[in-house]
Amino acid sequence: MKAAVVHEVGGVPRYEDFPDPVPREGEVVVRVRAVAVENVDRAIVAGQHYAAARYLTELPMIPTFDGVGELADGTLVTFGDLRPPYGALAELCAVDARLTRPIPAGIDPAVLSALSSAVTAMSIRTAGELDRGQTVLVQGGTGVAGRLSIKIARLLGAGRIVATGRDDDQLRELRELGADTVINTAVPDDDLLRAYRGALGDGYHVIADYLWGRPTGLLLRALIPETFALGQRTRLIQIGELAGAEVALPAASLRTSGLQIVGAATGFDADTFAAVYEQVLSWIRAGELTIELETVPLRDIEAAWCRTDLRGRRLVVTP
Amino acid sequence: MKAAVVHEVGGVPRYEDFPDPVPREGEVVVRVRAVAVENVDRAIVAGQHYAAARYLTELPMIPTFDGVGELADGTLVTFGDLRPPYGALAELCAVDARLTRPIPAGIDPAVLSALSSAVTAMSIRTAGELDRGQTVLVQGGTGVAGRLSIKIARLLGAGRIVATGRDDDQLRELRELGADTVINTAVPDDDLLRAYRGALGDGYHVIADYLWGRPTGLLLRALIPETFALGQRTRLIQIGELAGAEVALPAASLRTSGLQIVGAATGFDADTFAAVYEQVLSWIRAGELTIELETVPLRDIEAAWCRTDLRGRRLVVTP
Repeated sequence: MKAAVVHEVGGVPRYEDFPDPVPREGEVVVRVRAVAVENVDRAIVAGQHYAAARYLTELPMIPTFDGVGELADGTLVTFGDLRPPYGALAELCAVDARLTRPIPAGIDPAVLSALSSAVTAMSIRTAGELDRGQTVLVQGGTGVAGRLSIKIARLLGAGRIVATGRDDDQLRELRELGADTVINTAVPDDDLLRAYRGALGDGYHVIADYLWGRPTGLLLRALIPETFALGQRTRLIQIGELAGAEVALPAASLRTSGLQIVGAATGFDADTFAAVYEQVLSWIRAGELTIELETVPLRDIEAAWCRTDLRGRRLVVTP
Repeated sequence: MKAAVVHEVGGVPRYEDFPDPVPREGEVVVRVRAVAVENVDRAIVAGQHYAAARYLTELPMIPTFDGVGELADGTLVTFGDLRPPYGALAELCAVDARLTRPIPAGIDPAVLSALSSAVTAMSIRTAGELDRGQTVLVQGGTGVAGRLSIKIARLLGAGRIVATGRDDDQLRELRELGADTVINTAVPDDDLLRAYRGALGDGYHVIADYLWGRPTGLLLRALIPETFALGQRTRLIQIGELAGAEVALPAASLRTSGLQIVGAATGFDADTFAAVYEQVLSWIRAGELTIELETVPLRDIEAAWCRTDLRGRRLVVTP
């Protein structure tokens, strides 16, 4: 079969021949129809993500671990949790039959393959416990997931949405998506600190953080209280680390500020997942939520993997 | 009156004459009976605590902001929230009458003045949401508050208690207080990381953190998951910063680890405070909880302020 093949840690996947996967007991072979390529996939291939320990165990390997495919009888299914060195960027995958799920009718397989960012963006409700009327800060709003977070915050009834990014043109687009205030993080520390404080209003109730690193370090400083008074609760959800793997977290920013820091998976059990998935699908069906895609064929993976002009559109590969 | 007077940021309080406080409208004068001196008081005087902005506004000043005193009619009361430059380390204080509360019968005023660490230690339940049978890690267990956290974790029914410190003799004492496992943090990074992982068992459900800085940075690394599997929930409560004001917080330690980081004041509203205070008092009355004290007269404040041999006993000053 043809597949996107990585030969070294940090390498770019190339369109090549690769042995067909041989299904083990309990596995079925699916013909791949659509695969979304996300930052996490690039970070794993680059060896920069903790999950690389699991997915980058053998070289050469095929990246990404989930997608949408077709069973032998024509049924379309989502699948995941592939056995390295096999990944989803291939014509065929052998997958645990119990981990395939028929896809809902009326939704484009490409959209469905890119759904995970929208599901993750729902963490402003599941992990962040957002209530209607509250303020959401989307830290890193110009990416695919950041834009979906803004749209979903609006759909969930957020009272005020603040979004950050490094590009004034793209920040203007975020206003059209529903952001009330935008902050450019590509400014000196003092200016950024002032901007976070200036947009604070009655508090950032929920922060969806795709950046970490320098900007989130400054955001945390902006939240340090000046008195012992118990602050407004702020739930910061750690989702991505585009700006750095670490932040310097001052104890003072936590103690009485009302700040709580949680991972995006907090509160995300199987029932919650099912409910969130249904909610996102129903918004998509109703046309209330759109996921912007850039679809390319598998044979173009090498050039597509390196593209930096996607501007908030999700790369979806169709073998 | 006589008072403990600080003349410069970072100075040591001296036993000196200071003008009597003049009560404003709504204030009463109390004769001070007992004042606990805590790390936070030393940090404020040193200008190293964010609350210094409120309490270190004028020099000379009198440190500490709460205590136990006697009203003109002989009633014993707790008091707090003093108006700088006046503090509690003095013979007299002018306090907002609404902020005085009669002290419960049958409890030594010195014990009562030192109660706040026990109340804070209850954050393993209020902020940490500890359930019976769960594992508590007391990060910084050899101090007054750390020892109280161990005793209170035991009283709250913790299943397993792990405590850290830098002194093997004192760590042995923590076993007598109820710690099942002790970890010496004064070892090389790799050894400490291994020790945190080795004592992990089925997870640290609640971490009471008095240290922050290097040891907590390593603890967070020990919690980073190796797969995408959703980890056991760990509530880390930030209480103190004896080992450093900041930690380098890796995004990966949060995302799917089940780690949640909250301040000690989380969930601590007025009703909760009242319930916690009653619980602590009832344990003390019943002899189930003791607070070890070192009582010194106000005139000895200069030497007492600098003592490093208290070994888990709370310094209480009695004017």
